[in-house]
Amino acid sequence: MDFPSKLIQSAVDELAKLPGIGRKTALRLVLHLLKAETEETNDLAAALTKMRQDITYCQYCHNISDTDICSICANPLRDQSSLCVVSDIRDVIAIENTGQYKGLYHVLGGVISPIEGIGPSDLNISSLLERLPNSEVKEVILAISPTMEGDTTSFYITRKLREFGVKITSIARGVPVGGELEYTDEITLGRSIVERTNYNKL
Amino acid sequence: MDFPSKLIQSAVDELAKLPGIGRKTALRLVLHLLKAETEETNDLAAALTKMRQDITYCQYCHNISDTDICSICANPLRDQSSLCVVSDIRDVIAIENTGQYKGLYHVLGGVISPIEGIGPSDLNISSLLERLPNSEVKEVILAISPTMEGDTTSFYITRKLREFGVKITSIARGVPVGGELEYTDEITLGRSIVERTNYNKL
Repeated sequence: MDFPSKLIQSAVDELAKLPGIGRKTALRLVLHLLKAETEETNDLAAALTKMRQDITYCQYCHNISDTDICSICANPLRDQSSLCVVSDIRDVIAIENTGQYKGLYHVLGGVISPIEGIGPSDLNISSLLERLPNSEVKEVILAISPTMEGDTTSFYITRKLREFGVKITSIARGVPVGGELEYTDEITLGRSIVERTNYNKL
Repeated sequence: MDFPSKLIQSAVDELAKLPGIGRKTALRLVLHLLKAETEETNDLAAALTKMRQDITYCQYCHNISDTDICSICANPLRDQSSLCVVSDIRDVIAIENTGQYKGLYHVLGGVISPIEGIGPSDLNISSLLERLPNSEVKEVILAISPTMEGDTTSFYITRKLREFGVKITSIARGVPVGGELEYTDEITLGRSIVERTNYNKL
């Protein structure tokens, strides 16, 4: 695609580097910015630059944060005895949005994936092991996606955590709420029977 | 959606103002930028700001341009006797990419739409009428989308252009190349028969 302007060309090129944005979408965004107030473009550019420059990661849980210690770790009202291990910052946001969890987090920064060359040492696992002895954590909840890489990571962490004598649990795998039994794949349906919930305890 | 960082929050807010980008997509883009080099964010922000600040519109054809007169209008090799009227800058890029047109352009900046409150005076029509007498233009090609608003605009311009004694044509409406006759809507198929191409002339 040839553009009548080098300025447009370079703006489209930069936008098209973002995931899921092709050159046609990038051009649409650029033409939108051209039609909108100059302020909108400046605000966008400033927010992105400031975000990238000033963002830090919590030194305890590796969650994104504006300060050295994130608002979750710094909150004394959070349950200090539960630690939820997730692979990504997005998972923290997703779990926070459920409103069902009041404990702490630990962000691994990925999952073990030999194909992509990601080993245990590339993840925030050692800091998890260092963090546990000095904490009040009694239960570690593994909230890692049930893919092959995710399950490998959960298994690896489970083995490493055994010596600490903490309770290790995993988020439940089963039929999604609103899902139909007959359309659920066999492995999920199988696990949902094996790991069935005891309603007497409710 | 609550974010653990105000920096992330404002970056997501700004990105989500763009058309077709919701808050989930915006978060994905922000997390991508966080994982990529700082340079990528800075380059993106700089390209957008510079584009918005320095862009000008060609004083003849209203196409976007880095200079007062765009590269098409300034090119003496372009056919000065044809003028293609389009509604949007995107249409110029689309027609240029076909490589089938070597004449000049005139960008209206929209189409007449009473529902959206866009009248003829909101478009670059008066500059088109001023431009014609002092030019070598012999044929005006109307390349406006065949929607109700587009056809209204074409009709309005045709009436205004009559006094100039130039040839007025419209891009052909018909069955798209690669399209199936049986799946083409009746109006398009009807027009494609009425405005059939004479193969004896080819």
